[in-house]
Amino acid sequence: MTGKLYGLGLGPGDPELLTLKAHRILTGAPVVAYPAPDTGPSFARQIAAPYLRADQLEVPIVVPMRVERFPAQEIYDEAAETLARHLDAGSDVAVLCEGDPFFFGSFMYLFERLSGRYETEVVPGVSSMMAAAAALGRPLAARNDVLSIVPGPLDDETMRTRIEAAGAVAIIKVGRHSARIRALIEAMGLTACAGYVERVSLPEQRVMPLSAVPESAAPYFSMILIYKGGEGWNAALSRTTMDGAS
Amino acid sequence: MTGKLYGLGLGPGDPELLTLKAHRILTGAPVVAYPAPDTGPSFARQIAAPYLRADQLEVPIVVPMRVERFPAQEIYDEAAETLARHLDAGSDVAVLCEGDPFFFGSFMYLFERLSGRYETEVVPGVSSMMAAAAALGRPLAARNDVLSIVPGPLDDETMRTRIEAAGAVAIIKVGRHSARIRALIEAMGLTACAGYVERVSLPEQRVMPLSAVPESAAPYFSMILIYKGGEGWNAALSRTTMDGAS
Repeated sequence: MTGKLYGLGLGPGDPELLTLKAHRILTGAPVVAYPAPDTGPSFARQIAAPYLRADQLEVPIVVPMRVERFPAQEIYDEAAETLARHLDAGSDVAVLCEGDPFFFGSFMYLFERLSGRYETEVVPGVSSMMAAAAALGRPLAARNDVLSIVPGPLDDETMRTRIEAAGAVAIIKVGRHSARIRALIEAMGLTACAGYVERVSLPEQRVMPLSAVPESAAPYFSMILIYKGGEGWNAALSRTTMDGAS
Repeated sequence: MTGKLYGLGLGPGDPELLTLKAHRILTGAPVVAYPAPDTGPSFARQIAAPYLRADQLEVPIVVPMRVERFPAQEIYDEAAETLARHLDAGSDVAVLCEGDPFFFGSFMYLFERLSGRYETEVVPGVSSMMAAAAALGRPLAARNDVLSIVPGPLDDETMRTRIEAAGAVAIIKVGRHSARIRALIEAMGLTACAGYVERVSLPEQRVMPLSAVPESAAPYFSMILIYKGGEGWNAALSRTTMDGAS
């Protein structure tokens, strides 16, 4: 009997935003794998930390931050073979995923290598996008809005056309693109209906109207939400407290 | 002391996809409100049913199915005043929301009426969109894809331009628009990278490539996911089992 592979969505950061299902599978898995940077802690492991036990085998999958300079395919080939050895030995393996495993996540690289060989289940998680809307206190999208999720590294012209075509927009992976994106939104006249969230659901969460964001670069885990016609919602936001996790 | 208002995301249907936080708040709330159709059971209540207790006061918010014929604003005005009476009496009120409260949900209508008057917290939930990708076994979106969520009632031309502009698409509220949408996707040459999911995460869940969907109308709780360049993923899907919840 080979083991079963799980991709566990852990939610945006608050350990209480794990699902009951992810919690059950996490605490029952003999082997727990997670992506980790080459230096510093693994964010996925941090989310799961309150529930991990000393008798679980932990398998960090080290993915260098500047992965474009590295042979990323080889990293996932090697990680897949490591997990395959545990699965072949009959151990279930839970791969920890920040947010949701299939929403811009790296779990797909392991899934495509292993799901044909082993029983595999993906457990969806709360996305940071939903958590950001909750923190801002305004809808992501409603009724017949088109909602577009736009990665921050896209060039200005692509981003502009996608924002123009949607009723609501979530810009993810803002990070070092922050100043450029804010300038674009300002030029489009949409600053008044844009909100900013960083490190959502963590104790160090920050929430504010986009107009209040300081000039310095945003952290990688930051997001801008635009809700057109959302000026009323944004005015409400600016009356509420601007910091602190929920 | 007035009570606190919660908007609780319950996830897509499987009661085990509640978050630990939603579970804690749900089981501690003296008053539990939920949207309900004019006839038949409330889906939100069904998700929460395993955790409800007889000593909790239940407040159905009856929203007629053909709400466009009814004065919907008055329904939410009246519901808000009902909840306000419980909040004024010092009781916390948990409003149950299918999926995520702010992802195309009706909780916004209560939030906008009550959040200025009472302490309010929105607890994000697992969206049916993430659950559908997990059930299909393929990514929603990856890397620098633009992901667009497109409501099924939109007209063909709007839908076509939004699908063309995105790397990945989730079409929600498919329901009675099913045949028209499938014809559009076929005309765009995208059927081979489209998957279909209905009643995701429930025992009666159905998952299949779009090409295998029968002619009859889809239920309201159905979704089509398009992942361009996803033909390899779709081929994998057609090799896996096509039914049964995870």
